Amino acid sequence: MSQKFVYLFSEGNGTMRNLLGGKGANLAEMTNLGMPVPQGFTITTEACAQYYEDGEQINNEIIGEIHEYLIKMEEITGKKFGDAANPLLVSVRSGARASMPGMMDTILNLGINDVVVEGVATLTGNERFAYDSYRRFIQMFSDVVMELSKKNFEEIIDEMKEHKGVVDDTELDADDLKEMVVRFKKFYKDNLGNDFPQNPQDQLMEAVKAVFRSWNNDRAIFYRRMNDIPSSWGTAVNVQAMVFGNMGDSSGTGVAFTRDPATGENKLYGEFLINAQGEDVVAGVRTPLPISRLQEIMPEVYEQFVSISDRLEKHYKDMQDMEFTIENGKLYMLQTRNGKRTAAAALKVACDLVDEGMIDKTAAVLMVDPKQLDALLHPQFDPDALKAAVPSGNGLAASPGAACGRVVFTADQAVKMAATGDKVVLVRLETSPEDIEGMHVSEGILTARGGMTSHAAVVARGMGTCCVSGLGEIRIYEQDGYFELAGKRVNGGDYISLDGSTGNVYLESIPTIEASLTGDFGRFMEWADEIRTLGVRANADTPTDARQAFSFGAAGIGLCRTEHMFFDTDRIAAMREMILSKTEQQRRTALAKLLPMQQGDFEAIYEEMNGFPVTIRFLDPPLHEFLPSDENDIISLAGELKVSVEDVKAAVSELHEFNPMMGHRGCRLAVSYPEIAEMQTTAVIQAAISVIKRTGMTVSPEIMIPLIGDVKELNYVKKIVVDTADKIIADSSIEMSYQVGTMIEIPRAALTADEIAKNADFFSFGTNDLTQMTFGFSRDDAGKFLEDYYSKSIFESDPFARIDREGVGALMKTAVELGRSVNPKLKLGVCGEHGGDPSSIEFCQMIGLDYVSCSPFRVPIARLAAAQAAINIK
Amino acid sequence: MSQKFVYLFSEGNGTMRNLLGGKGANLAEMTNLGMPVPQGFTITTEACAQYYEDGEQINNEIIGEIHEYLIKMEEITGKKFGDAANPLLVSVRSGARASMPGMMDTILNLGINDVVVEGVATLTGNERFAYDSYRRFIQMFSDVVMELSKKNFEEIIDEMKEHKGVVDDTELDADDLKEMVVRFKKFYKDNLGNDFPQNPQDQLMEAVKAVFRSWNNDRAIFYRRMNDIPSSWGTAVNVQAMVFGNMGDSSGTGVAFTRDPATGENKLYGEFLINAQGEDVVAGVRTPLPISRLQEIMPEVYEQFVSISDRLEKHYKDMQDMEFTIENGKLYMLQTRNGKRTAAAALKVACDLVDEGMIDKTAAVLMVDPKQLDALLHPQFDPDALKAAVPSGNGLAASPGAACGRVVFTADQAVKMAATGDKVVLVRLETSPEDIEGMHVSEGILTARGGMTSHAAVVARGMGTCCVSGLGEIRIYEQDGYFELAGKRVNGGDYISLDGSTGNVYLESIPTIEASLTGDFGRFMEWADEIRTLGVRANADTPTDARQAFSFGAAGIGLCRTEHMFFDTDRIAAMREMILSKTEQQRRTALAKLLPMQQGDFEAIYEEMNGFPVTIRFLDPPLHEFLPSDENDIISLAGELKVSVEDVKAAVSELHEFNPMMGHRGCRLAVSYPEIAEMQTTAVIQAAISVIKRTGMTVSPEIMIPLIGDVKELNYVKKIVVDTADKIIADSSIEMSYQVGTMIEIPRAALTADEIAKNADFFSFGTNDLTQMTFGFSRDDAGKFLEDYYSKSIFESDPFARIDREGVGALMKTAVELGRSVNPKLKLGVCGEHGGDPSSIEFCQMIGLDYVSCSPFRVPIARLAAAQAAINIK
Repeated sequence: MSQKFVYLFSEGNGTMRNLLGGKGANLAEMTNLGMPVPQGFTITTEACAQYYEDGEQINNEIIGEIHEYLIKMEEITGKKFGDAANPLLVSVRSGARASMPGMMDTILNLGINDVVVEGVATLTGNERFAYDSYRRFIQMFSDVVMELSKKNFEEIIDEMKEHKGVVDDTELDADDLKEMVVRFKKFYKDNLGNDFPQNPQDQLMEAVKAVFRSWNNDRAIFYRRMNDIPSSWGTAVNVQAMVFGNMGDSSGTGVAFTRDPATGENKLYGEFLINAQGEDVVAGVRTPLPISRLQEIMPEVYEQFVSISDRLEKHYKDMQDMEFTIENGKLYMLQTRNGKRTAAAALKVACDLVDEGMIDKTAAVLMVDPKQLDALLHPQFDPDALKAAVPSGNGLAASPGAACGRVVFTADQAVKMAATGDKVVLVRLETSPEDIEGMHVSEGILTARGGMTSHAAVVARGMGTCCVSGLGEIRIYEQDGYFELAGKRVNGGDYISLDGSTGNVYLESIPTIEASLTGDFGRFMEWADEIRTLGVRANADTPTDARQAFSFGAAGIGLCRTEHMFFDTDRIAAMREMILSKTEQQRRTALAKLLPMQQGDFEAIYEEMNGFPVTIRFLDPPLHEFLPSDENDIISLAGELKVSVEDVKAAVSELHEFNPMMGHRGCRLAVSYPEIAEMQTTAVIQAAISVIKRTGMTVSPEIMIPLIGDVKELNYVKKIVVDTADKIIADSSIEMSYQVGTMIEIPRAALTADEIAKNADFFSFGTNDLTQMTFGFSRDDAGKFLEDYYSKSIFESDPFARIDREGVGALMKTAVELGRSVNPKLKLGVCGEHGGDPSSIEFCQMIGLDYVSCSPFRVPIARLAAAQAAINIK
Repeated sequence: MSQKFVYLFSEGNGTMRNLLGGKGANLAEMTNLGMPVPQGFTITTEACAQYYEDGEQINNEIIGEIHEYLIKMEEITGKKFGDAANPLLVSVRSGARASMPGMMDTILNLGINDVVVEGVATLTGNERFAYDSYRRFIQMFSDVVMELSKKNFEEIIDEMKEHKGVVDDTELDADDLKEMVVRFKKFYKDNLGNDFPQNPQDQLMEAVKAVFRSWNNDRAIFYRRMNDIPSSWGTAVNVQAMVFGNMGDSSGTGVAFTRDPATGENKLYGEFLINAQGEDVVAGVRTPLPISRLQEIMPEVYEQFVSISDRLEKHYKDMQDMEFTIENGKLYMLQTRNGKRTAAAALKVACDLVDEGMIDKTAAVLMVDPKQLDALLHPQFDPDALKAAVPSGNGLAASPGAACGRVVFTADQAVKMAATGDKVVLVRLETSPEDIEGMHVSEGILTARGGMTSHAAVVARGMGTCCVSGLGEIRIYEQDGYFELAGKRVNGGDYISLDGSTGNVYLESIPTIEASLTGDFGRFMEWADEIRTLGVRANADTPTDARQAFSFGAAGIGLCRTEHMFFDTDRIAAMREMILSKTEQQRRTALAKLLPMQQGDFEAIYEEMNGFPVTIRFLDPPLHEFLPSDENDIISLAGELKVSVEDVKAAVSELHEFNPMMGHRGCRLAVSYPEIAEMQTTAVIQAAISVIKRTGMTVSPEIMIPLIGDVKELNYVKKIVVDTADKIIADSSIEMSYQVGTMIEIPRAALTADEIAKNADFFSFGTNDLTQMTFGFSRDDAGKFLEDYYSKSIFESDPFARIDREGVGALMKTAVELGRSVNPKLKLGVCGEHGGDPSSIEFCQMIGLDYVSCSPFRVPIARLAAAQAAINIK
């Protein structure tokens, strides 16, 4: 084995990010650029992978290589590890390919021990500095490597300060710090059973192992899952010679951005502390100074830093986020990376860099994370007002945006109060399909139960309405009209505010500001549209949704769920009458009542979409979803329909299913009750004819048959559709065309797509159901055990959020290939929730789909993700 | 288009069954053999397919060809269609590839009309015969072609007989029959609006269409579904010159078998009627004579018939079922085909033909329908006793065999009464997992609700216990200890008898006789075993099942469902304690109670299987299945476990799932609770060590992890298994091996089988779940809508009974190919209910599986089906 696991900074470069991690690659790059970087070496990500392969052991080969490079580092720095006369102290820092909060960050001053500390004191002539460095090291090492919480040590410090009667750490002198080191070491031994390690080599190996371990801690796993980072990547470890910002008033440390990360303004932005180590800046013990003040305090260092930061931005062609330390008047660069920024800043930086001629539009389009755009599409709290507010609870950030309104506890109340012009926030234990109308008129939705894929969360995201779900600590007393949270009682009608992007709940009114889709946003999205080849449509069930989708740039509707139209108060009665019918004739009578309502909706939706195609999915859910389950509701329904309570109960019980997800739904309903498909076809076509007659607009309805598993199902239902549609069209004086296609959401449909494609104009992948069937778990139930899967690293991402390429993706690919093999003109799209997920959109580009369809508020995300996919996938 | 749609009998032969249907091919073959066959032609099955393709129209090309062949037929017979002077009358009969009850059978005397009838009278000098033929034709044509029920005409005949004061049809004279024809034609016109068709060409075309139509009537569709006959085959139509068995005392008609179809005895068997047409034999108006009597009445004809029947049996090398007519002393053969026979006869005929040197063992093995064997494996009613019994109800024939015992209404009663030596029949509304013990001790099970795949039906078939399910008309008063059926009250303790092969229920005691597995059966099965290449194992969960399976010839257990062991009264308590545990420690305590019970079961099963492999599936169902749902049961459980009722209710509600089939089950349980897998591994391995120590027997446990969808799930659970097992083995003084494999029952597992196979010793296809997930419908719910699918010809067979080769089969094939590509030693089997279905077994042979596993009572069926598959699939 001649694999190389360790690289000097001078051996690497900026392109070696996969091997050296982001931090290591950039340290190497800065070294090559001749910038002042304290030297050291990087242990590769492959060493981390090897560590896990070897059962969480660092093997002898790697240990040997680390020792070898430590010697090279000693030669470069002219210092020696563990040598009191000329000690080399190092920092140890993790560094993955992508910056990953949640992993072990930094151990400073490693290499110090009871002997070395004396040497440091002698060499620097600063005994206080030496012991301060030592106690910091003990503290960090114990916390990060040995999991002995830092808090324990803070308590010892507090005790000592109290005993001495001082307030600030800086008031402790060298003797105090010597005493502190003694106490720290004793605490260490009392708790861990061993002496604090004195051998610098042991310190180093333990620290390296701790970095490797931290790759798989819960927070890191969670972060990776949220950000689609594979666990196989591993992290590198950077071992770097220490420089000290805490050597006195000609020393210091700081962080800076080449542009303002909040606004994107092209102006050096940052802060620093004199006589401090990096952790002090983060800890906020003292208030740092703005970077501009450095110009006064150390003008030469400042000029040098400005020059370096300019060079770095031009070199990386992106805004940089840098860390530096000044040791006795000398500047050292400790890190540079592309800076994280707000969505608004991201757009401004991208546009400015193009205007400055630094990058082209393609590079600009790649520069913004599509998911960031979401923040720009929803109302946000006024930042000034928000600063003063304190959240009283934190639930799941289920649907982004900010909302402020008066508390209501039922959908009915919401409708009533909204009708009077009040802004309302709907607060419920959990929501159900019957709440749709109330959810629609609410500014925001707060639920006590339910996760990211609960009814409230899914529907709210679809509507673009702010939602905080699963706020477990709230106690709702709906009957009595109040709730309790954080010890406070909030009555119906009181104002509360929700932040759907953070999950924060405020028991006060906080003003919001509207989103703007023009300026940088508009310009940037135009570039994305020029580049992308995938079409982007929206999932929209109502004219309101359709309007929203159109304004966000959707070129059509990829999924209009007709059943959502049936839950409205004035419609569900006819729907229930239809379901409880005992004969086809009764069913037809009830359907005749629904026809004009559906037709009206379709007309309005066609008009909103102004000629773009509208894909209408026929009735999909099992019929029991439309029936009440509550005793009182059943009684009142029986009254309305003038049938016996027993009849209604019998129907409810007859329609009960053990596994409704796999029950009598989708095209199976049309097979059993062809008259439903007939009515829906009539509504689709009559609406089109009516709009064409009234406006002259092109109308392109696409009728989509759900849950097809066998071509014969499609043949049966399609015949009903075509017979009905062609007769209506022939009877009108209008020329119009329509298409009939299928959802591909059953594994068998994908496996037999060549048969199905012979009789279909289009396929739309229903990746939600396809994921359920392919994995064999239902989205409603999987939440309970998927947490175990994440924590045990069995799953790395939520397959309902990101298409599983190996399994679900394999079926999609099969369906695309089989389908196109018999029908080259077959139109292919996706309309599951994955349609708005960038990773999934990339996969859609890879397998050659024609379009993606997602909820209206995800349309801009999809447009950008599609552009990035077009660039990245050749 | 030069496709030929019509063949003279002389143009065809016996190999053309696919094109000419069975009847047509055999008529051609007999013609070629020079046997006396009334000549005619066959319209092909392709013409039938064309008829459906043309939207249920016979196109002009085919009409032309029929006319052309009618002329040829006239030339051959020397008679003319519609010519009163020399009339050609024909029979029209359907004839599919496989004999298919439920389709239109026969129209006789076609070609007769008001004019021709007179010619017939003149030619035969028998006016009564002529008008009798005419009235019969009107009756059959109206019934079969025009769907004007035959009953209407019978009423007219009855009226006329009453009016004339006679009892028997034969007492009506020629004038009466003339009058009858007038009345029949009037009735026809009154009801259908048109005159009875006089043009023989029109009569013929309508009859041909009626045959084609009958291919798709409900009964034919049902029969095809039950017998795996594709709807694409279509039926042929045979048009044959009439010969008349009703021309007087030197005429007659009959049917005969070359051997006794009930016993297989090698002796001509059949019956005939003098002066009759075929329908009279069937109608049973007169009692036919045994065929041996023909020897006395017409010795020459008899000798000729015996000689022909010998020739036919030797020619077809199988028992023949023949129809013949004697017209004025001349013998005509109307049909021959391989005769249907009882299971016992089938075995005897096969063995005898081998002994007679007529066929070899391979041909013998192909001669018996595997499904027939079932009847031989279960107790049957004493045939003599059965003759006197009258059923009081008929439910679904859910699990075969006969049972007689005393009525009990609960599983507890069943257990108690059986313990005293009483034979019991369990009568329930429906059964649930908690009834298992009671079902086990019962002779038979009768339920009011539930179909062929209800809990009662599935479990009973698995146990080999007779079951009649879904007997809707029964009224059960469990509390009061009686039921009512057919107006009778039956108390608990009364005797009833069930026939699980017919669904009949008798309110009396009928003695049963036991099955015998020796003699012809044993000899025949040995031949099958010599030929087959697929292994046959059994699904068996208990030592009793294992013993049964072993006696039926299972070479191992392919599926031992460990959860079934947990439902016993003494175990479910510990199981529930485990489920309600709040900590891992509590769970381990409860599991420790289950360990010795499981271990004991495994020891007994290993011993029963005597060295054959035993595949043990780890806990599979969602945990809520083990908890009570009834309020009282919850209260008593809380009492037993000394926890609060609220705690139990909370646990039940916490474990509730929307779609349990896709919930927290299978390996997902082991991921969440590794200690369950640990306990089960301990039981499997300790049991093996104990049996090896005690008996020296080889024990080959195969641990099967259910519901794998991703290789990482397998890796996680397998590590627990291997760590646990290897430690126990190392601590023992025993050398033993074990295997770890997976179910392939989730589509994703099949799609990623190459990954999974890397870490698996075997795959066992769980085709029940795989079918559910691939089609996206649950077996519990699909029953409701699948009826619509059958009646609309969307599905032709039940995918839960017969593997869907296009979809589910495609996934299986993928899994086999991917799995073997990385692991050539991978052992492959199937353990869904399909493992006992001949068509599915054939598919398993096609894709190269190593074994099938099925319920014990299906083992002989599987052995035979596997042999047939080995012969048929090259």
